[in-house]
Amino acid sequence: MNTLWPQELRSELGECVRLDRATLEAHAGDKWHAATLPEAVVLAQTTEDVVRAMRFAHERRIPVTPRGAGVGYVGGCVPVHGGIVISVAPMQRIVELNTADGIAVVEAGVLTADLQQAAREQGWFYPPDPASAKESSIGGNIATNAGGPRCLKYGVTRAYVLGLEVVLANGDILRCGGRTHKNKQGFDLTGLFCGSEGMLGIVTQATLRLIPHPPARAALSASFPQFTMAAAAVQNILAAGHLPCAMEITDGFTLAAARSYLGPSSLPEGAQGHIIVEIDGQQHALPDELRAIRRILLETGADDVQEAENEENVERIWQLRREFSYSLKATGLTKLNEDIVIPRSRLVDLVSWCQNLQQETGIPIACFGHSGDGNIHTNIMVPRDETGHERRAESDACVNRLFQWVLSHGGSITGEHGIGLAKAPWFEEAIGTIAFRVHREIKQALDPLNILNPGKMGL
Amino acid sequence: MNTLWPQELRSELGECVRLDRATLEAHAGDKWHAATLPEAVVLAQTTEDVVRAMRFAHERRIPVTPRGAGVGYVGGCVPVHGGIVISVAPMQRIVELNTADGIAVVEAGVLTADLQQAAREQGWFYPPDPASAKESSIGGNIATNAGGPRCLKYGVTRAYVLGLEVVLANGDILRCGGRTHKNKQGFDLTGLFCGSEGMLGIVTQATLRLIPHPPARAALSASFPQFTMAAAAVQNILAAGHLPCAMEITDGFTLAAARSYLGPSSLPEGAQGHIIVEIDGQQHALPDELRAIRRILLETGADDVQEAENEENVERIWQLRREFSYSLKATGLTKLNEDIVIPRSRLVDLVSWCQNLQQETGIPIACFGHSGDGNIHTNIMVPRDETGHERRAESDACVNRLFQWVLSHGGSITGEHGIGLAKAPWFEEAIGTIAFRVHREIKQALDPLNILNPGKMGL
Repeated sequence: MNTLWPQELRSELGECVRLDRATLEAHAGDKWHAATLPEAVVLAQTTEDVVRAMRFAHERRIPVTPRGAGVGYVGGCVPVHGGIVISVAPMQRIVELNTADGIAVVEAGVLTADLQQAAREQGWFYPPDPASAKESSIGGNIATNAGGPRCLKYGVTRAYVLGLEVVLANGDILRCGGRTHKNKQGFDLTGLFCGSEGMLGIVTQATLRLIPHPPARAALSASFPQFTMAAAAVQNILAAGHLPCAMEITDGFTLAAARSYLGPSSLPEGAQGHIIVEIDGQQHALPDELRAIRRILLETGADDVQEAENEENVERIWQLRREFSYSLKATGLTKLNEDIVIPRSRLVDLVSWCQNLQQETGIPIACFGHSGDGNIHTNIMVPRDETGHERRAESDACVNRLFQWVLSHGGSITGEHGIGLAKAPWFEEAIGTIAFRVHREIKQALDPLNILNPGKMGL
Repeated sequence: MNTLWPQELRSELGECVRLDRATLEAHAGDKWHAATLPEAVVLAQTTEDVVRAMRFAHERRIPVTPRGAGVGYVGGCVPVHGGIVISVAPMQRIVELNTADGIAVVEAGVLTADLQQAAREQGWFYPPDPASAKESSIGGNIATNAGGPRCLKYGVTRAYVLGLEVVLANGDILRCGGRTHKNKQGFDLTGLFCGSEGMLGIVTQATLRLIPHPPARAALSASFPQFTMAAAAVQNILAAGHLPCAMEITDGFTLAAARSYLGPSSLPEGAQGHIIVEIDGQQHALPDELRAIRRILLETGADDVQEAENEENVERIWQLRREFSYSLKATGLTKLNEDIVIPRSRLVDLVSWCQNLQQETGIPIACFGHSGDGNIHTNIMVPRDETGHERRAESDACVNRLFQWVLSHGGSITGEHGIGLAKAPWFEEAIGTIAFRVHREIKQALDPLNILNPGKMGL
């Protein structure tokens, strides 16, 4: 390949092409540990920038790694084969917010929290709420089909994407779906690009569904002396006909870390399980539902139930949840956060199995997450040996055993983060040989030169 | 081609292969007018039957038309090139209904209403509610990504499909997705098969998401002296933070037909708009919300509001809605039911435009449907000329003009029924040249011999 192509790209596209070391380094990876320098970075201001860069790459068979806000967890935007990183991060325009149609049209670089805020100001709601909402972009959310606690009631990103503008591997602009809330025109291309991790095209604009913002929300927080009780509470609440917007569960290991971090008044001593239940709806409807759920929690063995009936107190409960995460960080151990999913009935099995693994290996494991849909963030806490080095190989072995267990129990190795590089080694086993072949066939159909985010998912 | 292949198929697969004229005729079409005889019908009892039939067809390049309950509206299961019809209608087993995991595993032939009923008996809910629920199958619902009134709050079929078993064009069995409520393992193959109209594979089994059944529901029904008021009521209800499970709207033409069919006490004289609003949730929450919505309806100009606070009365309101449909049939005119979708803000424009078209052409047009998501069933009523013949050519011209109008106003020519044969002539224009090419590429990737439901969507 002509090694002068980065200069040519810059001559053709101008200012949006960056070749300086600092920019290349800033676009070498995401929140995962891997990093590779690209040879050029395109900071796209417009769809046309993406088209021109993609055509340039297509003509010369240069690998292209699409990138949003760069806050993924699986190395999905590491340019493993060098080439061009096309970042849509500068494309931050909310093009239209139309409540009469119940839609927002946004450029791919718009931060999720900015869209949520813009909709909220008009009394409307964009429900997907990945923990990274303040720093992740809609384009990245679409690439990974991002979730979050509220997916239990409201569904993942896919459920809110009505239409897309996508730059294909050859630079053509595909528009699929549209601004209607239903659309059965042909195959679900819009859905296919949701979660495709930048391997089938580059999303540059999205038309998103908004719903009326529920006027009120309320929450409960409860500690249990046994984890089994917390898991049973999750089942009992659903079985009684409640569909909370979120139901988060936390295990004893995390609670102990939180208690030591936050002080003894924060949580009952020896709590082995904790859940947060958030409900939303009409203002006058919530107090009764809150009481009904409180009753279920107490009947299931909760020994400390807090209620939050207004926005401020609800936020306080979620702040406690965030402290759980900080508490784990405060242990000083690196945490390998694996976003596995299990069938909901397997919550207790998962936590018991992790406790056994911890006893066997001496490697701490902390479980907390979205219990309603079985999406439990299972954190392998990498310990250090006597010389201060991380016991990384043993920790990685634990991850491997975790994934094997999850797959043999009807689970998924990722519910939110995606496959990318990090989970590629398990991907074919996870989905099976035939599904893997179908992935290859679709990839080959839409990107025959294999220039779009090559090397990911093991494809 | 060896013309003896139907006999060979029968020898290989046995009893499930039918070659008799009556069975061939019964599998020649759906509710649309087109019909073509297949050369053989496979009444699959098991996935293995489908696999064997598909392998047989693949080896000999025989066209295969997959079929569910055969109640589609767009000729999607007409075997236009003859060959084999593979019917999964006999596969009616509910394999598992697991409320702890919140899932049902069903064979593709299970009738939608049967699954709804089975879930309901355990206090759980399968929300998708196509009007055909009592006669359509889950497989067919998946093939068309079926909707219904409740999709406003609950989403279409896709939102409830967690995993699929699909027999591919070469007879391989693909399993995608699974029994977890979240799953980000690779591309969204499950979503791709939802709505693929039997052109990419044959769905034989599905794992579906169930949610807790809302304990109560309630409804309102309101007539308006002007259609614009009814459309405004839809907007005002949403803007006030209500998300009803359904919001149905009906135009003046349909109401006049209903009044003449049901008698003068059924509806106010000269009503030009009517809406039904259904809400659901916790029992104690509904009366207040009902009152709040009633107030909005009256403020927006409703001159007759009925409330239904219990299951029986809610059903009575829906019965009125069904009578609207019967009233149109009672006019004696053939109705061409087009399930177009428009952006929600365009409801009034659509109905005004239809009234103008009616005045210009003398062909009656009746609009009613799912106003919340803009999915309006627009019924071109085919009149007869003096000699008693249907003025079909003129009516077809009206359909054509309707579709052109819909497409030029950001709409979709189908929200529920799909493309099939009926809408194939407009398909490429509707989605654009590039999206059409991507359809071809995906079709070619998954069915390179083009034996799966060939001739549909104009592919």
